[in-house]
Amino acid sequence: MTAADVKVLFGRRVRQLRKAKGVSQEAFAHQIQIDRSYFGSIERGERNVSLENICLIAEGLGVAPAELLTFDTLRDPALGE
Amino acid sequence: MTAADVKVLFGRRVRQLRKAKGVSQEAFAHQIQIDRSYFGSIERGERNVSLENICLIAEGLGVAPAELLTFDTLRDPALGE
Repeated sequence: MTAADVKVLFGRRVRQLRKAKGVSQEAFAHQIQIDRSYFGSIERGERNVSLENICLIAEGLGVAPAELLTFDTLRDPALGE
Repeated sequence: MTAADVKVLFGRRVRQLRKAKGVSQEAFAHQIQIDRSYFGSIERGERNVSLENICLIAEGLGVAPAELLTFDTLRDPALGE
């Protein structure tokens, strides 16, 4: 798994879990107090997210941090908006 | 889980897995081409490690990235050297 892959996979996993909760990007960014455009770039796989933000996002989604690094449920590589 | 907790838990998990492989801190840091003292500070829970380095360490340990954020096998909070 390359460095670029992990950022993209992480972003998709966050998006997948956020959508499953039925929360918009804007509402979720506000909920966890992260800048909305920064959060959007995380979901697009553009950010090398840190441990603390991984936990912040996991807590906001109500999942364990390890869930955000579990990529096997991401079926379609083109999964997106 | 606070931000400080996650850094400490992550460091302990990395140390636990590294020791299980019987590899010294120095040898492992060299193997994954991370500065030894920086790697030592990661294991001590002093670093807000990024996604890319989480994957680099996971690959070096031969585990999935999610394994490094799975903390339930850390029995003793005072687990250390």
